[in-house]
Amino acid sequence: MARWLVILAGGRGERFWPLSRVMHPKQFLTLVGEKSMLEATRERVGALIDDKHTFVVTGVDYVEKVSAALPHVPREQILGEPEGRNTAPSIAWAARIIAERDPEAVLLVLPSDHAIQRTQRFLVLAERALTLAKEHGGFYTFGIVPTHPETGYGYIERDGQAFGDAEVLTVRRFVEKPPLDVAEKMVASGHFFWNSGMFAFRVTELLEAVREFLPTLHDGIESLAQDPQLVDEIFPALPSISIDHGVMEKAHQVYVLPADIGWDDVGTFASLARLLPRDKEGNAARGPAIFVESRNVTAISDGPAVSFIGVEDLYVVATPDAVLILSPDRSQDVRKVVQALKDGGEHEHLL
Amino acid sequence: MARWLVILAGGRGERFWPLSRVMHPKQFLTLVGEKSMLEATRERVGALIDDKHTFVVTGVDYVEKVSAALPHVPREQILGEPEGRNTAPSIAWAARIIAERDPEAVLLVLPSDHAIQRTQRFLVLAERALTLAKEHGGFYTFGIVPTHPETGYGYIERDGQAFGDAEVLTVRRFVEKPPLDVAEKMVASGHFFWNSGMFAFRVTELLEAVREFLPTLHDGIESLAQDPQLVDEIFPALPSISIDHGVMEKAHQVYVLPADIGWDDVGTFASLARLLPRDKEGNAARGPAIFVESRNVTAISDGPAVSFIGVEDLYVVATPDAVLILSPDRSQDVRKVVQALKDGGEHEHLL
Repeated sequence: MARWLVILAGGRGERFWPLSRVMHPKQFLTLVGEKSMLEATRERVGALIDDKHTFVVTGVDYVEKVSAALPHVPREQILGEPEGRNTAPSIAWAARIIAERDPEAVLLVLPSDHAIQRTQRFLVLAERALTLAKEHGGFYTFGIVPTHPETGYGYIERDGQAFGDAEVLTVRRFVEKPPLDVAEKMVASGHFFWNSGMFAFRVTELLEAVREFLPTLHDGIESLAQDPQLVDEIFPALPSISIDHGVMEKAHQVYVLPADIGWDDVGTFASLARLLPRDKEGNAARGPAIFVESRNVTAISDGPAVSFIGVEDLYVVATPDAVLILSPDRSQDVRKVVQALKDGGEHEHLL
Repeated sequence: MARWLVILAGGRGERFWPLSRVMHPKQFLTLVGEKSMLEATRERVGALIDDKHTFVVTGVDYVEKVSAALPHVPREQILGEPEGRNTAPSIAWAARIIAERDPEAVLLVLPSDHAIQRTQRFLVLAERALTLAKEHGGFYTFGIVPTHPETGYGYIERDGQAFGDAEVLTVRRFVEKPPLDVAEKMVASGHFFWNSGMFAFRVTELLEAVREFLPTLHDGIESLAQDPQLVDEIFPALPSISIDHGVMEKAHQVYVLPADIGWDDVGTFASLARLLPRDKEGNAARGPAIFVESRNVTAISDGPAVSFIGVEDLYVVATPDAVLILSPDRSQDVRKVVQALKDGGEHEHLL
């Protein structure tokens, strides 16, 4: 029995355009710290699981980029999906391959594009979840104490205490991205966590749950295991469903570990802006920037020098061929510009 | 006797950074219309003076660029100053060479970086000034009716009527860039024009006035005429003085033609912004731009696509290696950023 890591790196997010591009999505960006989100994700678990026990599931177009970023992960353990089908197919595919090599395996599943500031605390909790999964079985999630009624995340409602201390709780239910009034009530109740999208479980239990709750996916993954050459036929026909919705909501023995790990999904420029250090005028810069009599400005550049004179309350993202300037409350709307570029046929600024 | 054109193209303006650079100043930019300011200046007088009768005085570093922009102007008539010494030395140098070839010449002197929207009206007035200079002698200036108490321009106070109609007036005095309260009084009086920096006069009269009022400059220009090889020694030692201050203020027979020619010195991003057409939300773009729920934004790009979401009242200037974002009332302060770049040793963004 060993511990295995499955990194989900299939994101094609448009919310970081123009930093992210179709061929260079968020997991490959260096948004926080000195490494790409993907590299930081792999590096963070170094003390827990080695590269040889790591799988990465990504888009087929990104396999080379992943391999270049994580050269010590065996090339055949970087799985390229011909089409994104959400997280359940990704995890089931990797799990099926791991189960064949190591039927006793316990898996840690991590998104590749989140920031975690308290690495040591994260490692303690991941180790705890993996150990409990091995000893007791069950599905372990990591719940983030909400700081605001975010409508962009899923939530986990806790139930009672699962084990001998208060740090592992049973899950009552999962809630998909809620409307604002529902989110406000959930946060006020104190019974809800944000779902961080990280999981730990035994590989056999996961595959058993897939067989029980997602039989079509189970059959597809079995076919794929029999004949991996047929991935281009089989994979796009798999049901597109999240692991939360397809498995966790229905499974028995689902637990949540309250995870005070400095987590952030860095889902928008607003969340990135929250993570950057600010000067006394409230300005923050990632990349070269000059502020003249300006306040509360966030400048993110992957090259151009960005200068400000007498402006306030602005996010600016600069690349050599595209510049985005937005009001701080509008970072959810970046897709509108991406859509306008698509509508205008200006695909060169998306690639 | 012929009419000769002297274009002053020595500007090294920093107010259009990052569009303008040390090696690519404003006169070479295409800010208005489809041609560079310099090309438009030469083209505008096509019906009046041909390329063979054109001199351009510029910095020695820009001679090749001028020659490329104006290939029909004889190469030896593009004079390269080793160092900028303001307008009196530039004009005197060209005048001295022209006088030798054509002692009866009348000169039209034009800055190379102003916009004139009413070309035909401009030609009528230039023709009038040249004809009067030839017939009567004297120095002719072109006065712009002020639209606001601009503190960045010089002013010309009119006196009485000079010739048979109200369209040529004698000049009472020149006023250097005034403080705001003085500018307000001048504009309110109705007796003042903006000095457009364009002039017409006989070459002999100009050289005579230089001899009388700027004897040091006169001697230097004579030495230069004797031995043009010594330009690197002689030119930097010339007094640095404007033609307005050094000659026009002291000369006799100075006239002003009220010039309703749609003139703009395009001295700042604010003046450029005034010249651009706007959509119904008040947004204007020169170069690729996308506006999403934004108002009163001016976007100027020489390449990058610039996108806006939910912002208002902003000027943005984008180049592949530098982006400038400023409040519309701060376009006089662009030099602060240029200075900050110099102070920081970041000269690569200035070149």
